[in-house]
Amino acid sequence: MGERVVVIGAVAAGPRAASRLKRLKPETEVIMIDKDDLISYGGCGIPYYISGDIPDETELRKTAFHMVRNEAFFENAKGVHTLTKTLATRIDREKKVVHVKYLETGQEDTIPYDKLVITTGASPFILPLPGRDLDGVFAISNLHSAVAIKERIAKGEVEKVVIIGAGPIGLEMAEAFRDLWGLEVTVLEYFDQPLPRIIDKPLARIVAHHLEEKGVKLVLNARTKEIEGKDGRVYAVITEDGRYECDLVLMATGVRPNSQLAREAGLLVSPLTGGIVVNERLQTSDPNIYAGGDCIEVTHLVTGKKLVLPLGSLANRHGRIIGTNLAGGTETFRGAVGAFVMKCFDLAIAACGISYSVAQAEGFDAFYALHNQTERAHYYPGAEFIFVEIVADRRDRRVLGFQAVGPMTDGAMARVNSLAKLLEFKPRLEDTAYMELAYAPPFNTALDPLNVVSMVAGNLADGLFKPITWDEVKKRLLENDPDTVFVDVRHPKEAAPFMEKYPGRWIHVVYDQVRHNLDKIPRDKDVILICNSSMRSYEAARVLYAAGFERVFVPLGGLNFPRRWGWQELSL
Amino acid sequence: MGERVVVIGAVAAGPRAASRLKRLKPETEVIMIDKDDLISYGGCGIPYYISGDIPDETELRKTAFHMVRNEAFFENAKGVHTLTKTLATRIDREKKVVHVKYLETGQEDTIPYDKLVITTGASPFILPLPGRDLDGVFAISNLHSAVAIKERIAKGEVEKVVIIGAGPIGLEMAEAFRDLWGLEVTVLEYFDQPLPRIIDKPLARIVAHHLEEKGVKLVLNARTKEIEGKDGRVYAVITEDGRYECDLVLMATGVRPNSQLAREAGLLVSPLTGGIVVNERLQTSDPNIYAGGDCIEVTHLVTGKKLVLPLGSLANRHGRIIGTNLAGGTETFRGAVGAFVMKCFDLAIAACGISYSVAQAEGFDAFYALHNQTERAHYYPGAEFIFVEIVADRRDRRVLGFQAVGPMTDGAMARVNSLAKLLEFKPRLEDTAYMELAYAPPFNTALDPLNVVSMVAGNLADGLFKPITWDEVKKRLLENDPDTVFVDVRHPKEAAPFMEKYPGRWIHVVYDQVRHNLDKIPRDKDVILICNSSMRSYEAARVLYAAGFERVFVPLGGLNFPRRWGWQELSL
Repeated sequence: MGERVVVIGAVAAGPRAASRLKRLKPETEVIMIDKDDLISYGGCGIPYYISGDIPDETELRKTAFHMVRNEAFFENAKGVHTLTKTLATRIDREKKVVHVKYLETGQEDTIPYDKLVITTGASPFILPLPGRDLDGVFAISNLHSAVAIKERIAKGEVEKVVIIGAGPIGLEMAEAFRDLWGLEVTVLEYFDQPLPRIIDKPLARIVAHHLEEKGVKLVLNARTKEIEGKDGRVYAVITEDGRYECDLVLMATGVRPNSQLAREAGLLVSPLTGGIVVNERLQTSDPNIYAGGDCIEVTHLVTGKKLVLPLGSLANRHGRIIGTNLAGGTETFRGAVGAFVMKCFDLAIAACGISYSVAQAEGFDAFYALHNQTERAHYYPGAEFIFVEIVADRRDRRVLGFQAVGPMTDGAMARVNSLAKLLEFKPRLEDTAYMELAYAPPFNTALDPLNVVSMVAGNLADGLFKPITWDEVKKRLLENDPDTVFVDVRHPKEAAPFMEKYPGRWIHVVYDQVRHNLDKIPRDKDVILICNSSMRSYEAARVLYAAGFERVFVPLGGLNFPRRWGWQELSL
Repeated sequence: MGERVVVIGAVAAGPRAASRLKRLKPETEVIMIDKDDLISYGGCGIPYYISGDIPDETELRKTAFHMVRNEAFFENAKGVHTLTKTLATRIDREKKVVHVKYLETGQEDTIPYDKLVITTGASPFILPLPGRDLDGVFAISNLHSAVAIKERIAKGEVEKVVIIGAGPIGLEMAEAFRDLWGLEVTVLEYFDQPLPRIIDKPLARIVAHHLEEKGVKLVLNARTKEIEGKDGRVYAVITEDGRYECDLVLMATGVRPNSQLAREAGLLVSPLTGGIVVNERLQTSDPNIYAGGDCIEVTHLVTGKKLVLPLGSLANRHGRIIGTNLAGGTETFRGAVGAFVMKCFDLAIAACGISYSVAQAEGFDAFYALHNQTERAHYYPGAEFIFVEIVADRRDRRVLGFQAVGPMTDGAMARVNSLAKLLEFKPRLEDTAYMELAYAPPFNTALDPLNVVSMVAGNLADGLFKPITWDEVKKRLLENDPDTVFVDVRHPKEAAPFMEKYPGRWIHVVYDQVRHNLDKIPRDKDVILICNSSMRSYEAARVLYAAGFERVFVPLGGLNFPRRWGWQELSL
């Protein structure tokens, strides 16, 4: 007789562990339990279900070949005995039994195990606001909350939505509410940018402006104080500065690992991250108990620190590794770099490694470079712009992270995925500058945006140009700074409206004539070189430095950045 | 006074070396010469110029900000003195001069150098066929040939085209001729598949069938013997088996490095590859002379062998590295893995590393695995199928190469670029199986196709299933092999037409009921399990092996492969 393995949690990591184990070692008895009745669903698809792109919640529970993954499916197809509406209440490690409660009958029971798998996932963090229990306040806890939200919209009961939190789920849900349903959507974000910690401000501002263009009201630096109700139903969200009427509130303020069952069983749970502590084989502090998915902490392979990284991609990897190891294999999960991609209306947003703000907080001597260019060969019809940022350490030029915001193609993901696994090997800027990437005009440029932004960062680290931020440029422009002159090296037609608006201070010397027009450029002022992507500015700066100019600055990223931020002063 | 650097060749690597050098060390005098008058063009864009997607050849010579890169541009913008229509006839290394001939006047001259850069590129290999000099026989040697071909088509002088060679350029040109111009296009390929050595047959057959669907006649195993003329103009191409009338012939039979100038100067040129030998700093055997681009040989980072890899992506990298090193830097180019992507009508085709056929020839104990699935979450609207192959070494499970054919998105490129740089680090199948890749339903699946095909290969190496090729399946099916039974584990509706056509031999047991229907499956015959992607077949095989069945086989890649090959017997 084979041993018995019990799996607690049947969404992503759990079913994968159970199924893999049964395939490798069919004599094992595998019992999978879950407190819910809707199991093994694609949680990342919920926004597309709510938007209406996916008509029915069962689609999220179906295999690629259109079978619904329910209890019978796991029983028949996988040989995994599956108990739903079954809550694991306690793990008795000494007796090796799981205490359970059958939620439909209230009956209690014990299930003995030889090996146990904890894949209990994570739960939304609910801000402890007054009014959080009002009818109409939601969080995406599971498929039921998704169904409830969609039903409410479909019934016409929702006109105005407030989303608390402009993280990935907040923004995906903003699109879901707005794009097809046309609801009035306000997103309240505590920090001063959407997607904090994931991307930095230069890219986040593009996202913020895009949300505005799509009719989503984004309120930054919002301190939510209270949820106001009327007849038991949500009526408004109150912040320190404002009041936002709504008939539905979605809390999208992150998740917390469901690690209490493990903690109560005496397993090591990190007080810092709240995640279950596992080794590289994904064993907990009890070698008979494995854990994976959103309830464990993992090692960040850039910082070396532990964190909880609730990503469906990782949960699926954990599950299979656990399945292999339970069957006697020796597979390992060494950690993650947080490879991330999301759709936000017409934008694709992707990142890996750490952002500049995180890198600073983590004590790196961090700096960043920006770049924008067409995603494909510029002469290829329909090529659109992609905006990228690379983060590196000044001391050893190690690449710490990378971010991309582009049109809704696979381009942003492609660049991030090119780098993600590589980050484990601690690449330096010269590695990413020259890294080989497939090229053809319909797909990218001979030097990919990832190569180019690495080259820009290398040039910056080499001191080949003096950078200036667009914030500083704007400040000097609006303050009429007498010590600064703006030299536009673009085509005359592009420079003309600026010269008209900022007479005297905004001058024009076309890029290829800079070396012949040194006398037009003042040596006793700060010279800020203006072009769309910063490439021409950089080259012009090199010409000017060579001619003895010293006060020459290249704005980071090119004029396309403030344009895409919606900065009117620089969008003429 | 700075030193003088002369650059021979002004297409890709040359201009980049010259410009980078001038930016880093402006006091250097840089002279760039080229025998042509059209320089610094995006050669990879030629098929899109010929197709009409790009209206004018100058587009291929323009910067992203729409300046034409001609002599004046390099002079003014880059400070690079540029001489076109100037042929380098000899390098005198002792005197450090380049002998040149001004092609317009016939005048000869010498240009002294301190350092020299050879970026002379490659030229099309012209098959030594009788009739190759006839009017109407072309090869894409430079922008002039592209212009000449397009003019001829635009004038209505071309109706039927024969392309010799189904490599990347042959296929891109087939699309250019066919898609917008509607010409009758025949492609003659010496080998038994398109894109030989780049992708293997399972994917190449998809390309071949797609070409057929698009009205391109593809003739494999074609031995061209002669080009027939009429009044001095091409009239037909004769092979050992056929005769193909045409009014235009395009030779797309590969390129040869232009290394004769270097060889005559006594520089080391490989007799094997024909490429100029360089070190990692891209110096030739004369340390004062650098070389890069299509005229050098590079190290293949998977095989360790030298080869000529004429890719625009690499030429641009070489150029910048040479520029840095000439300025006193120490950048290196360690080699390449041949990251490759191309558009072929509605398909994106990408590859990196080495193919199965190359791996066998190179002495690896190679094997491959196939997989197909939707590019995005299967429930995400509009998700299309991507077909992938991974090649690994049986001895250590090292990943040797990867190929993808999918719809015309960035998806195939994304997967190949995720792996390309990583190949340098000799990843094993478990590395690519679990490698972290960003996931969201609009972009991919929780386990990316690259992960999944690595898992399939791992399962294969572990002996978890017995593979069989579709060629063998088809053979047994058509031969009515009495010892084989086909067990279709798909939905009844999918199996029905097969059961009707192959009565008795094609039986149906739906995937999730296999373990309950063991009695329906013969133990004394070879059982071939049928499904669309091979996932269900694999799982069913595991169930059957566990039940003591031994003669159970899983066709590599799933039924979607032969379907996309256009195999009628398996496309019911």
